[in-house]
Amino acid sequence: MTTAIIVAAGQGTRFGPDRDKLFFEVAGRPVVAHTWQRFEDCAGIDHIVLVIRDGMQTLFQELAGTYAFKKPYSFAVGGKERQDSVWSGLDAAPSNTSIVAIQDGARPCTHLSIIESTIAAARESGAAVAAQAVTDTIKSSDTGITISGHLDRSKLWAVQTPQCFRLTTIRHALSEVRQRGLLVTDDTAACELIGQTVRLVPSAFPNPKVTMVSDLLFVELLLNSARPGVV
Amino acid sequence: MTTAIIVAAGQGTRFGPDRDKLFFEVAGRPVVAHTWQRFEDCAGIDHIVLVIRDGMQTLFQELAGTYAFKKPYSFAVGGKERQDSVWSGLDAAPSNTSIVAIQDGARPCTHLSIIESTIAAARESGAAVAAQAVTDTIKSSDTGITISGHLDRSKLWAVQTPQCFRLTTIRHALSEVRQRGLLVTDDTAACELIGQTVRLVPSAFPNPKVTMVSDLLFVELLLNSARPGVV
Repeated sequence: MTTAIIVAAGQGTRFGPDRDKLFFEVAGRPVVAHTWQRFEDCAGIDHIVLVIRDGMQTLFQELAGTYAFKKPYSFAVGGKERQDSVWSGLDAAPSNTSIVAIQDGARPCTHLSIIESTIAAARESGAAVAAQAVTDTIKSSDTGITISGHLDRSKLWAVQTPQCFRLTTIRHALSEVRQRGLLVTDDTAACELIGQTVRLVPSAFPNPKVTMVSDLLFVELLLNSARPGVV
Repeated sequence: MTTAIIVAAGQGTRFGPDRDKLFFEVAGRPVVAHTWQRFEDCAGIDHIVLVIRDGMQTLFQELAGTYAFKKPYSFAVGGKERQDSVWSGLDAAPSNTSIVAIQDGARPCTHLSIIESTIAAARESGAAVAAQAVTDTIKSSDTGITISGHLDRSKLWAVQTPQCFRLTTIRHALSEVRQRGLLVTDDTAACELIGQTVRLVPSAFPNPKVTMVSDLLFVELLLNSARPGVV
């Protein structure tokens, strides 16, 4: 079976419960309820693990009620770093899970087609990630004020979520990270440590993450669009 | 005075006149007419040079009539490479131009505030470019199929247009490019050759370029949005 792991354990230190970006209302519901809906609607997903902050269980149960989510779900409590939260989510996956689809809770526009194709690629190769070829010219800056260097954009990909893995593969990779006491920025970086190649799965549709309040404007545009296939 | 140089000389080899992405209708008018409107509306721009393919003059004059553009404009004929087109545009700028704002014709959503702040930064420092901090995780791929390496995104910026310069500075930089027979991907890369630093000017609003037909969907969402400040 295939289990989605929605990482929704944003630190409470920076956002109080009323300021949590996952609970900002956009296009009629909280950000994280849009994200959840995508995996609720995806026929390839059998179970959903929500990795949350302790104490938020009731709030998420209320979401499930409000939006009539029917797919089986369970909770895991997030850890200090993202990799700890993912680890916790893996532990909470049903034991007959073969593939996991790890998703940012703050990425509410993910298209069904990219969820499905990333899962398919992970089933084939062990590890795959939703990605978009970088189309802007990319420069590096040491200071953030002036340009320091130029990069060859034809080799650059923006990786997003879902990041999908065979459960055994991502467990192996993340246990290696933990044993070595490393900090990785995303789960595909953990795969490098065990020599597991990661497939890039190009997505044709925008798949933004809410990182700042200003991102909500764009996300709202996407979510409100009635055009089939855009969101 | 400040002159906008709108580079709208896309190769006719890949798009016939009916397939030119600049003339795709989106949100009620051709892409390039939206771009033109941004510079028409920007009080800091005194004159507009349109760099076009030879033979397209009448079509652009018709646009000016249809959309009632009042600001003085002139034409330059584009060259083989983008840098040749920019060079041609510089030659066509009024002789009392001190600052130029070079804009992709296919970037129709550029916000007025970023045009103004990029011009201001170029006036101060000689060269400045609209840019957005990269928020997605960026990986490199040698093959386009699997991930080859990881980049430190905290140092990465997506540069867009406008790219603004003192006219003397960009002339110096591009003449250096031409003398050395180089090919540069954008005008800020030319500045490196003459040791001119380029200021990054962060934009809070999406500023996409139309590169594929699928980009038009997102661009249309932005252009159709009535929310002030989004487009």
